[in-house]
Amino acid sequence: MTDGTIPTQGFYSFNPRTGQRGTTAFTNATAADIDAAVQAAQIAFAAMRQYPAAKLAALLDAVADEIEALGDALLTTADAETGLGLPRLTGERGRTTGQLRKFAALLREGSYVEAIIDTAQPDRQPAPRPSIRRMLVPIGPVAVFAASNFPLAFSVAGGDTASALAAGCPVVLKAHPGHPATSELTAQAIHRAVQAQGFPAGVFSLIQGDQAEVGQALVKHPGITAVGFTGSLRAGRAIYDTAAARPVPIPVYAEMGSVNPVVILPGAMAACSDSLAEGLAASVTLGTGQFCTNPGLVFVVDSDSTRRFIETVTAKMQAAQPGVLLNPQIQRGLVQAVAGTLNRPCVTVLTGGAALDGPACGYAHTVLLTDSATFRDDEQLQAEHFGPVTLFVTCASLDDLRATLETLHGNLTATVHADDSERDEAAAVYAILREKAGRLIWNGFPTGVEVVYAMQHGGPYPATTAPATTSVGMTAIKRFMRPVAYQNMPDALLPDALKDANPLDIWRIVDERLTKEGIPG
Amino acid sequence: MTDGTIPTQGFYSFNPRTGQRGTTAFTNATAADIDAAVQAAQIAFAAMRQYPAAKLAALLDAVADEIEALGDALLTTADAETGLGLPRLTGERGRTTGQLRKFAALLREGSYVEAIIDTAQPDRQPAPRPSIRRMLVPIGPVAVFAASNFPLAFSVAGGDTASALAAGCPVVLKAHPGHPATSELTAQAIHRAVQAQGFPAGVFSLIQGDQAEVGQALVKHPGITAVGFTGSLRAGRAIYDTAAARPVPIPVYAEMGSVNPVVILPGAMAACSDSLAEGLAASVTLGTGQFCTNPGLVFVVDSDSTRRFIETVTAKMQAAQPGVLLNPQIQRGLVQAVAGTLNRPCVTVLTGGAALDGPACGYAHTVLLTDSATFRDDEQLQAEHFGPVTLFVTCASLDDLRATLETLHGNLTATVHADDSERDEAAAVYAILREKAGRLIWNGFPTGVEVVYAMQHGGPYPATTAPATTSVGMTAIKRFMRPVAYQNMPDALLPDALKDANPLDIWRIVDERLTKEGIPG
Repeated sequence: MTDGTIPTQGFYSFNPRTGQRGTTAFTNATAADIDAAVQAAQIAFAAMRQYPAAKLAALLDAVADEIEALGDALLTTADAETGLGLPRLTGERGRTTGQLRKFAALLREGSYVEAIIDTAQPDRQPAPRPSIRRMLVPIGPVAVFAASNFPLAFSVAGGDTASALAAGCPVVLKAHPGHPATSELTAQAIHRAVQAQGFPAGVFSLIQGDQAEVGQALVKHPGITAVGFTGSLRAGRAIYDTAAARPVPIPVYAEMGSVNPVVILPGAMAACSDSLAEGLAASVTLGTGQFCTNPGLVFVVDSDSTRRFIETVTAKMQAAQPGVLLNPQIQRGLVQAVAGTLNRPCVTVLTGGAALDGPACGYAHTVLLTDSATFRDDEQLQAEHFGPVTLFVTCASLDDLRATLETLHGNLTATVHADDSERDEAAAVYAILREKAGRLIWNGFPTGVEVVYAMQHGGPYPATTAPATTSVGMTAIKRFMRPVAYQNMPDALLPDALKDANPLDIWRIVDERLTKEGIPG
Repeated sequence: MTDGTIPTQGFYSFNPRTGQRGTTAFTNATAADIDAAVQAAQIAFAAMRQYPAAKLAALLDAVADEIEALGDALLTTADAETGLGLPRLTGERGRTTGQLRKFAALLREGSYVEAIIDTAQPDRQPAPRPSIRRMLVPIGPVAVFAASNFPLAFSVAGGDTASALAAGCPVVLKAHPGHPATSELTAQAIHRAVQAQGFPAGVFSLIQGDQAEVGQALVKHPGITAVGFTGSLRAGRAIYDTAAARPVPIPVYAEMGSVNPVVILPGAMAACSDSLAEGLAASVTLGTGQFCTNPGLVFVVDSDSTRRFIETVTAKMQAAQPGVLLNPQIQRGLVQAVAGTLNRPCVTVLTGGAALDGPACGYAHTVLLTDSATFRDDEQLQAEHFGPVTLFVTCASLDDLRATLETLHGNLTATVHADDSERDEAAAVYAILREKAGRLIWNGFPTGVEVVYAMQHGGPYPATTAPATTSVGMTAIKRFMRPVAYQNMPDALLPDALKDANPLDIWRIVDERLTKEGIPG
């Protein structure tokens, strides 16, 4: 790795409401900075890998406390850098501290290490069976790439950081250049918690940069053992490709967005199209459409009421006050993406389709329309428009609808609206959608991702590069752990989770039976 | 994909004992054959993804029964193609049918789907919390690459096939060209079970071929969603690279072998060096050394007794009757690998180091010696010698030993021999080895992999391409499953595993508590 590959110019915050840039210059990390951060992470890991879960839990709680102690400064800084507004950012801060504390609770309960024990059978013929005891251990130093659209909850102390630290892995965090000051503030909170809890400093490092080479150098570093990423398909795939081409390839958990198909069956359309139109328009425009779960595709069966419904959604989106986009890059990307879609044959724009004038980063609420045959033949129409944009796809019949859904790429979510008489039709549609998405929603909207144990925020490519994992919810911790089995190990040398007496009082599978009981010595 | 890329010549079985080739010609699958197999798998999957676990279990049991019904013909055919001998193959058959039945039992118990339920909180402020229910579902059609060294247990109906079918995934199996007739026989047994159990034919297809292009075409097929592989680093990495470069990348679970370091601490050396020498020589030469868990590296601390120990092991290996290698390719590879190691500076051969004369595929039992400084500076010395070969690495002290172990690459196993007074030293060594291997063994030998719930047969690269997974043991099923969450889904539309009443009577995490209780409606 040479310094030569990373440009050294500085970059600035940008206020998307005013179009003004901030006054503090941030500099791209050098290769030496990155190397120092990863080496510190490796040193930290050598200590941390022996830490009990309770010590990791204390760190997570302390990070949450320190974030709260930042007070309004964190929110106003984030607001100035993202234009997301204080109410949303207040909620997002609660989500961020909430998930840190929820991981701490998971650690204190302790069963997340998935202990499995098969006891010895000394009398087995033709040879004795050894004792085999298996549990999950942390994978090692993790590189995390922060997202632009959640400056707190998917950023410096967001879900990837929380789950990696919970797993016992040090984190080298590549901040998003859209909110560098917010990132610095949050990192300082983490550093304070790290120091107060007596962790090695290398457990967390912040890397700034607005050049792709910074992230590439981080992913290539031989000390990194896994990558968490939230962002665009282009950037996520580039990181995945780099990681796969390493001499030692490593897993990349990239959550790269999604078009989140919403299917409205005819009965639901007839029964409640007004509240449905209201809900859909609100979901498309929520947060200026800048959610990975934004409903970007709506599949409907053509009819008079469907046409009225599309008109109603269009009118509601037209009437609603446009929000501010995060930054000029997002705005440029959206202009390009919508223009690209409108260049395809048989796609029409019902409202919007252009950036808004003025100093703020804005884009008109946009409704696009195409038909199922066009959609099936043109996979470009599955490209994400990251912003307040949705594309209606009208189908001729339920058969046509199902055939069209079969052509969908991977998504984070898929939603069906149906009335109670349409359960069989809904089941047939869900049977298709289950293979296309990580979360299936009934009569709701995909925006809003609960941080709960059961959440699955992931899905087949291109939604993610790792469909068997989630980036939200408590099972996100599994991404940063690997199993180790101990064979015939004396009790004293076993980790507590695997000792005969079960001193952690956790659930374990012992001789094929789930139990908290100890094993007679 | 074009037919043009796959050579069309035939290939033959080869008897490694006599050097004679078999009489039946096998042909490389064409691109059309591969496409037909994957398309049939996709059709089968559309039906199978709705099957209850009990139906999948019935198939696994039926496959085990049909393999047994092949009787001695299977064993004699395998023996003629591999030279492994009837006692070993009889044991391997038992292991093969045993793991099929063990997966069937796992399915019938049912909790392997990892059901997690967070119930709705309709009164939560500021917004109601939806019901989120998550479980694992099958990932889709799987390509499995059979290994040469286990013609039954890691081959057509081996662990990868068993775990993929158990997960509910159809399998397209690329047979190993070392035992094509054994593969055909086993495939016929599977086909009979498939038919008797009323599964779609595409649930299992066999693909033959001795050209790398066959496997490459299979991995590139867009209908394949995951790959299981056991074999060499070179072949496994090629498949991994191909899968990562697909438009839609897919996971590759490649188990690529390992040098399985054995560490002998001074106390153990002094206490029982004779039985230790006996055990080590037996482990290195077991199965003519053709195990992924063969102990290929032995780390010792230099002393008089250590030198005597190395002499004893060398004498025992020299005295033992050499076995037969699987085929001429293995023999050529071993000749090259040992020659490559002997070309490095400061490596000496204590016995062996050459192929055996005669019609049989043989290689002399081989003991190599180097010192820790040489080993640390030359990562070529971590290359696998697939055969009855081990390399002693003498260290100057315990500190030197630990520093040397820090340079180890990823392995399937790591073993420590210590006496009871050396537990602290052993703990310090295990702390290093835990990051290098999937299974840690105390005072034993790495050969012999128990098929139990707790087994971890995997490890950091280059042992595998997916250190968070195992290819042996019941958790191997997780490789072929992905989570799906259901949001606010009516009970009638939920899979049985997630219904309120818990009709499958499985363990579930409900509102953060593990229970078999149902949820009040």
